[in-house]
Amino acid sequence: MEGGGVRSNGSEDAIAHGGDLDAARRLFPGAPEPWIDLSTGINPVPYPLPPFEASALHRLPTPGDLARLKAAAAAAYGAPGGALGPNHVAAAPGTQILIETLPRLVPAARVAVIGPTYAEHAAAWTRSGHTVRMIADPAEVGDAEVLVAVSPNNPDGRVFSPAALIRALGGGGLVVLDQAFADLEAAEPAVPGPSLLVLRSFGKTYGLAGLRLGFALAEPTLARRIEVALGPWAVSGPAITAGCTALADTAWRRAAAGARAADAARLNRMIARAGGRIVGGTALFRTAAFADAPGLFRRLGEAGIFVRRFAEAPERLRFGLPADKAAWCRLSRILR
Amino acid sequence: MEGGGVRSNGSEDAIAHGGDLDAARRLFPGAPEPWIDLSTGINPVPYPLPPFEASALHRLPTPGDLARLKAAAAAAYGAPGGALGPNHVAAAPGTQILIETLPRLVPAARVAVIGPTYAEHAAAWTRSGHTVRMIADPAEVGDAEVLVAVSPNNPDGRVFSPAALIRALGGGGLVVLDQAFADLEAAEPAVPGPSLLVLRSFGKTYGLAGLRLGFALAEPTLARRIEVALGPWAVSGPAITAGCTALADTAWRRAAAGARAADAARLNRMIARAGGRIVGGTALFRTAAFADAPGLFRRLGEAGIFVRRFAEAPERLRFGLPADKAAWCRLSRILR
Repeated sequence: MEGGGVRSNGSEDAIAHGGDLDAARRLFPGAPEPWIDLSTGINPVPYPLPPFEASALHRLPTPGDLARLKAAAAAAYGAPGGALGPNHVAAAPGTQILIETLPRLVPAARVAVIGPTYAEHAAAWTRSGHTVRMIADPAEVGDAEVLVAVSPNNPDGRVFSPAALIRALGGGGLVVLDQAFADLEAAEPAVPGPSLLVLRSFGKTYGLAGLRLGFALAEPTLARRIEVALGPWAVSGPAITAGCTALADTAWRRAAAGARAADAARLNRMIARAGGRIVGGTALFRTAAFADAPGLFRRLGEAGIFVRRFAEAPERLRFGLPADKAAWCRLSRILR
Repeated sequence: MEGGGVRSNGSEDAIAHGGDLDAARRLFPGAPEPWIDLSTGINPVPYPLPPFEASALHRLPTPGDLARLKAAAAAAYGAPGGALGPNHVAAAPGTQILIETLPRLVPAARVAVIGPTYAEHAAAWTRSGHTVRMIADPAEVGDAEVLVAVSPNNPDGRVFSPAALIRALGGGGLVVLDQAFADLEAAEPAVPGPSLLVLRSFGKTYGLAGLRLGFALAEPTLARRIEVALGPWAVSGPAITAGCTALADTAWRRAAAGARAADAARLNRMIARAGGRIVGGTALFRTAAFADAPGLFRRLGEAGIFVRRFAEAPERLRFGLPADKAAWCRLSRILR
């Protein structure tokens, strides 16, 4: 489990997450500003936000606005020439709220979550009264009716084949595949269907996490139920405008995939130089084990660099990508 | 019931709402552009959006960002010198998603909704498996355990005293008071407690409906449960920035209340001149009955002016406020 892990009693304590620079400042009050936040896996080179009309802020988004966004998402996330249509798409203000919502729409089930992984999945299914079991491998799925996997996985980058997950579940049931970090990878698109629901994160790929936009891809009946559970107008006008433009910009996404992969390779080399053993990662973050991870976390923090640590895996640190030359230089001075 | 009303089978058909200019264009393909959208109750003179840092878009909002927003909401919505604290506040991407979420957090109950009113309330409670009954007056609450009221009510402007609603429910139970249109009225603040949950809409008051921001005010345990159900990062960075600034700007809100009340009075006079009988309203909309409402709806539509009609009350039309002199003039040419 990433962060504090799932409370076995399904309690409502907050799970630890990256991105909280206020917490970093409390931990290291003497650190130099500005902080470099490497504690998340958000693209540090954001998509240039298109100008949006004032009306996108002032009025409610119309059904037509939402339909255009869903069409853009279907085109971006589907296989070329594939059959993914707008009716397979539910748009949300970030994937997090989809992770919260989905368990409430599924009858009480035995749920297996492949982990360690993003902790909110197991927490959300537990909160909704499902029986949740953490497993290390799809082969351990047992009699589960729902199988949750993050692919590539956060924080270790493991990749799971959608077809293999569906086979592991043995027909029937539902595979929930969180592809939050798949957009900039070479993986082939997963095609949602009666046995497969896919989550895609807009904010991480496009560096616009504060805008709040994410998608569920599912068979149309389930996609519609998710949409109804979120209600009309769940997605903001600016998010719709940005989503329609950015999702259609395949050239930008291809260039970003190349540039971030190069960044990730550079980060790998830097981590190795500092004695770290790469556990895995994606184009947006690298996770590594260190002989003295707590000591390195502290040295980084004292230098104003915030990385992600894991209470249940104290030998590991996860590094997001530096945004610019200055950040690379500051990181390089510690990782050596 | 506003719009198509509640499906008694709790089905997931969309409820009709204002604000869909695409629909208006389909109904009146020959109408002049630009359309004047009077079909919602959104302040047509928006709060000037404060500039926000790029980081509000790029990174995830921090717990500290959310805490500042909740403090601003507690200060804006509480009674002067009152005891409303940030822990009474749950922030959401619009009140609509709160209307959807709340019924899922309450054990199966007998629910009474005072109506006709905003149709999503009864629909959401029905969808979550509660037994829902529409009543015309708080006195008809009977053995209900949850009492839902919109005050001032949409579309007729009826005002309900929170204390009277709690008394009608007879101790215990929960009053859900949707004050979406209360901000610009003279009403005293409703103080949430174990028997009272209050919904407040940011977008309508501040003319920023596309930004998606709304609040539940409740006793801290329930507020926290709502927050957990929405997950971290439910509210976007730009919405947090705008909310913190606008909610603290009491001078703007006072001026807006005065200006919109004057607009509403002007609209009343115009409607009366056109033979309409004012049913009620708020500072952001007026609802009126007409001898030939369908005919007037059509004349307005053909002139590019979209107002709200009601399938279940065909003699009524609801008018939002025109935004500027040109819009007032165009409306005036039809309402005579």
